[in-house]
Amino acid sequence: MSSSLHGSRISISIFGESHAEAIGMTLEGLPPGTIIDMEMLQRFLDRRSPGRNEWSSPRKEADCPEFLCGIKNGRSCGTPLTAIIRNTNTKSRDYDRLVSVPRPGHADYTAQLKYKGFQDQNGGGHFSGRITAALCIAGGILLQELERRNIYITAYIRRIGRISDETEYSHGPEQVEFPVLDPEKATEMQAAIMEAKENGDSIGGVIECVVSGLPGGFGEPIFDGIENRLAQVCFAVPAVKGIEFGAGFKAAEMLGSEHNDEFTVSAADNSGVIPLLKTVTNHAGGILGGISNGMPIVFRVAIKPTPSIAKTQKSVNIRTFQPEELKVGGRHDPCIVPRAVPVIEAAAAIAIADFIL
Amino acid sequence: MSSSLHGSRISISIFGESHAEAIGMTLEGLPPGTIIDMEMLQRFLDRRSPGRNEWSSPRKEADCPEFLCGIKNGRSCGTPLTAIIRNTNTKSRDYDRLVSVPRPGHADYTAQLKYKGFQDQNGGGHFSGRITAALCIAGGILLQELERRNIYITAYIRRIGRISDETEYSHGPEQVEFPVLDPEKATEMQAAIMEAKENGDSIGGVIECVVSGLPGGFGEPIFDGIENRLAQVCFAVPAVKGIEFGAGFKAAEMLGSEHNDEFTVSAADNSGVIPLLKTVTNHAGGILGGISNGMPIVFRVAIKPTPSIAKTQKSVNIRTFQPEELKVGGRHDPCIVPRAVPVIEAAAAIAIADFIL
Amino acid sequence: MSSSLHGSRISISIFGESHAEAIGMTLEGLPPGTIIDMEMLQRFLDRRSPGRNEWSSPRKEADCPEFLCGIKNGRSCGTPLTAIIRNTNTKSRDYDRLVSVPRPGHADYTAQLKYKGFQDQNGGGHFSGRITAALCIAGGILLQELERRNIYITAYIRRIGRISDETEYSHGPEQVEFPVLDPEKATEMQAAIMEAKENGDSIGGVIECVVSGLPGGFGEPIFDGIENRLAQVCFAVPAVKGIEFGAGFKAAEMLGSEHNDEFTVSAADNSGVIPLLKTVTNHAGGILGGISNGMPIVFRVAIKPTPSIAKTQKSVNIRTFQPEELKVGGRHDPCIVPRAVPVIEAAAAIAIADFIL
Amino acid sequence: MSSSLHGSRISISIFGESHAEAIGMTLEGLPPGTIIDMEMLQRFLDRRSPGRNEWSSPRKEADCPEFLCGIKNGRSCGTPLTAIIRNTNTKSRDYDRLVSVPRPGHADYTAQLKYKGFQDQNGGGHFSGRITAALCIAGGILLQELERRNIYITAYIRRIGRISDETEYSHGPEQVEFPVLDPEKATEMQAAIMEAKENGDSIGGVIECVVSGLPGGFGEPIFDGIENRLAQVCFAVPAVKGIEFGAGFKAAEMLGSEHNDEFTVSAADNSGVIPLLKTVTNHAGGILGGISNGMPIVFRVAIKPTPSIAKTQKSVNIRTFQPEELKVGGRHDPCIVPRAVPVIEAAAAIAIADFIL
Repeated sequence: MSSSLHGSRISISIFGESHAEAIGMTLEGLPPGTIIDMEMLQRFLDRRSPGRNEWSSPRKEADCPEFLCGIKNGRSCGTPLTAIIRNTNTKSRDYDRLVSVPRPGHADYTAQLKYKGFQDQNGGGHFSGRITAALCIAGGILLQELERRNIYITAYIRRIGRISDETEYSHGPEQVEFPVLDPEKATEMQAAIMEAKENGDSIGGVIECVVSGLPGGFGEPIFDGIENRLAQVCFAVPAVKGIEFGAGFKAAEMLGSEHNDEFTVSAADNSGVIPLLKTVTNHAGGILGGISNGMPIVFRVAIKPTPSIAKTQKSVNIRTFQPEELKVGGRHDPCIVPRAVPVIEAAAAIAIADFIL
Repeated sequence: MSSSLHGSRISISIFGESHAEAIGMTLEGLPPGTIIDMEMLQRFLDRRSPGRNEWSSPRKEADCPEFLCGIKNGRSCGTPLTAIIRNTNTKSRDYDRLVSVPRPGHADYTAQLKYKGFQDQNGGGHFSGRITAALCIAGGILLQELERRNIYITAYIRRIGRISDETEYSHGPEQVEFPVLDPEKATEMQAAIMEAKENGDSIGGVIECVVSGLPGGFGEPIFDGIENRLAQVCFAVPAVKGIEFGAGFKAAEMLGSEHNDEFTVSAADNSGVIPLLKTVTNHAGGILGGISNGMPIVFRVAIKPTPSIAKTQKSVNIRTFQPEELKVGGRHDPCIVPRAVPVIEAAAAIAIADFIL
Repeated sequence: MSSSLHGSRISISIFGESHAEAIGMTLEGLPPGTIIDMEMLQRFLDRRSPGRNEWSSPRKEADCPEFLCGIKNGRSCGTPLTAIIRNTNTKSRDYDRLVSVPRPGHADYTAQLKYKGFQDQNGGGHFSGRITAALCIAGGILLQELERRNIYITAYIRRIGRISDETEYSHGPEQVEFPVLDPEKATEMQAAIMEAKENGDSIGGVIECVVSGLPGGFGEPIFDGIENRLAQVCFAVPAVKGIEFGAGFKAAEMLGSEHNDEFTVSAADNSGVIPLLKTVTNHAGGILGGISNGMPIVFRVAIKPTPSIAKTQKSVNIRTFQPEELKVGGRHDPCIVPRAVPVIEAAAAIAIADFIL
Repeated sequence: MSSSLHGSRISISIFGESHAEAIGMTLEGLPPGTIIDMEMLQRFLDRRSPGRNEWSSPRKEADCPEFLCGIKNGRSCGTPLTAIIRNTNTKSRDYDRLVSVPRPGHADYTAQLKYKGFQDQNGGGHFSGRITAALCIAGGILLQELERRNIYITAYIRRIGRISDETEYSHGPEQVEFPVLDPEKATEMQAAIMEAKENGDSIGGVIECVVSGLPGGFGEPIFDGIENRLAQVCFAVPAVKGIEFGAGFKAAEMLGSEHNDEFTVSAADNSGVIPLLKTVTNHAGGILGGISNGMPIVFRVAIKPTPSIAKTQKSVNIRTFQPEELKVGGRHDPCIVPRAVPVIEAAAAIAIADFIL
């Protein structure tokens, strides 16, 4: 329960607070001998790290994992694999006041209710976006293994604020730093972020993720279908407030004759007992009855604007019971969406790997 | 795994196929002595039953559960409670052809891949909407217990096709047969359904659900927050293709200064160690960091149009490997949304009860 | 939790009370297309049924399961498989007094504490030995599938009271009604049971179980090794009070040089990357580090004497708070050990199947 | 699965190999604000550490845990608590040969089968007794919390080889370094260990554990009773080969009239709705129907002799497929039983805490 995910094959335990000694994760269920390419993993983690460009927080966090066990000569042992990231660049002063005046949109207040004041609230504690670095270690390792099995996961930005990119997906984005299908839209989106930043504000967005190469027949009906599990894992990412598959909420506006994806024979392989079909459209997002149908899994998540903003906001001091105004200092991202893209890829890898490893 | 949900306190095992002897469920974790009002439960199940009005399937299914164990003198024993519903009004002929020609939008093909032809496909088998009757037995019992604890769950229709009801929620819908906040919109929505029906088509929609009375502090961070668990359970409902909390996908278009819900002191109770706060707006949908904040939990699910339509559709015969046209006979709902409303309430009850029982 | 077992591959949910409408079980994780030989299953269930001979209870219970779903044409669908047994031959009068005067050695008192009086105590309720019939449905199905994979599970009586059979195991017992390796010991054991019966008393025993054909390499270290899981499932059988593997408690008296099983090359197969070894002795009971080593899994369980005896016993009336004498009426087994033999085979099948299906 | 235990309230994830960077554990479910007395914890861990006396391995391992997260100002935060112990005093040379010639009685061979050679076998790797240090961190913390709730767990030695201590338990052993109820027997037992040591051999034993103060009514019937869970956790301790509760295997030799524990009114408290009973004897070991009855929980585990012995043993080289003789070097315990005593206390604390926290 809580910070651990217990799948059928993969278990992940996430631990740590933003200003504790370390954050980290333990991954169980990785087949013995799985190659872990450390350079590739570091490049993946770097995509999530802050401080690399003007639209992310100026904090410099290296996010270099230390592997404690479960790995030998670059390969998994088959036993639990634990990796940690030490917390070094922490400025607890930035957060001192937040213990008594909860930030609007943050988990400060709910953590207080749940943990009765014993939580480590500095830097957001266990609720910090930093915890997604641990998710990315697990996801980054699994992404490598999925690729070896010809399953590819790619996420990119579909929307920043009111700027939406409707380009039809044919292949992944050309660059990973600000991944958008249409480069012109990327420019507009970055402008929207910079505008929010200059106003001491923040802005939300939508990320789309495509899982290609997953064969049909995976997913467990009712409570452990592909949608159930992808949703469960994606809502582990702090700012996610919605998820939709295929046509998603648009499906609500459609007729059955529009939404149903007609079947056609897949040229690829009809040699099996059951011929492989494909669908002409993919409104189902590759999932029927919770089970993969062989088409790409397509889903989108809504990312809310970062709650930490420099603008003055109203809150209440929970020690004095008095209203208080609050201006969140510290070094924050005006838009978390670009950094969340690899996190969503990691989340998807975790959910999908549980079905196929 | 699969058809069972294993929460911290509540476990539910759903079983059955549409044309097997029975469908049913086993509920574990109900506190001993919990009153089960059978008449109230039956009224709840009747809301899901087909055949009651012109916009649902003309099939008459009574959905009268038989309780096998775990109950004595109208109260739960504390031991596993199992109830079944016999399948009686089944017309397997309607489905004979579907074994070889999968229906677009249905789980026929993916079930075939997963179960290699050993599934019982009649009536949709384990993937039939009928299985939600079992979900409603569990949910209906839990709804009663939640109400005793002053937690109320109400769902209603927000959209049918292109007809959307934007009325602000203040109290639940006036009637339960076609529950919409604005009665005028209800008339328009029903017209849209009847139009789809006359065209041999079907139509989708959006259901909104409000959980009021849940105190702050519930939910487990990262993988078992309220969003994670509500999403996992809601995607157990066959036609759900998206879920969003609070502002949801709209949050992606907002600035932080717009989206953040400012805190204010709740008049209700400031006597505790931690004063109870409320928020002026509720863009968070009552959830921050996966944990309830004391405001109503608000979420919406997208329901796709019923895949079974009378119109001719293209598919492939998986025995002959040849394209084939298909016109789904049988008695189907032109719009599943009204009948899905109590199912979403049941799903919400299951997810919420696991946090508080 | 509680009455459900959630393995990696197999989930079993047991439900029912002795005098409720029915007892039953839901089995998830059976591969689609698994053949279920109903006659073989019935013969297996009959081994557990009472009323067949003079050393078991004269109650006649047919134990004929009704399959509700998950099976079609004699094969599993791959979906949850539920079977129930209706309770028919119930005499609740026999148990009326027990609600207020708990029987020594029974769960009457602890159930009262746990369920606060809301339990259905008739016939032992959820704690009745009858519930093992549900365990045997699940186990009987899995035993058939394991045999198809050349894994054989055989249990037999090692001890009744002071009569112990020390015969070295080479093959299973010759008959199943009173399965003992040495037929002469069987006669002595039956005499001991009849003596207890004539005295209105009961008697305990030890059952040994051998799992042969399980390849090496199964079992998960630390909490989910073969010993952990076999123990967890065997203690689901009401009267079990101890379990030991291989030399078991005798190992405590041994030196390492005596207990260590030396390795030797198995003639069977040295073609693999890792040659298959066997051990000269099998003090480890086929398990090292929680993982199977390819030798037969051997374990023994201690079965306490049936608590229901006709002799006068001292207890306390929980309504009057006064001491009271109690003579348990009803129709009880003087020795549950013979009927528990197939139950232990079923328990072993459940635990082992979870590792290999 | 595997190295993680997922209870209803407590989850523990154990990780690490003997010669990896570190071993450690993550504990979830500890109530926020739980005091962790570090000095008391260290004293508890020291009881398990080797090198303190002549009957344990001369290896000096400090076993000083480093807490990475989940703790602040000496109290738990309520979030996952992770602690690690760095591996420093490792001599991998001692183990080099064991990769190709598996030690009799060890997991070398089964780990090879399971992990296909990718395991880190040095020092026993993930199967080393060293991993029980991680178990003791979790258990030590929980023992402190249980004591605050007046639940006391005490283990002591009942047998070393053929020396058995039959003293009736009234209070715990007088000293903790070699805890035996009868000090004279302790001397005999130590002599037996020294004799085995001088012969380059090892010796087994039996540990008894008493849990006092646990109120009646805890435990979940069928698969999650107190016996099921204590057994599951105790078999996580490498050398355990058997477990029995109360009279245990002796129950098999008893009549019902001897074994049944008669009820009597507890002087302590009859003010509740259900009067608290006690039993005159405690053959049930405090557990009826898997549920605590308010009497002390009593169980015993069989500990096999340490497999690592200096005597020459026969094995097989898995590279050459040839028989080979083996003399295990390194610094090993002639008897693991004394050091296993706190480990069994830790295991009991883990199992019991899951029922009551």
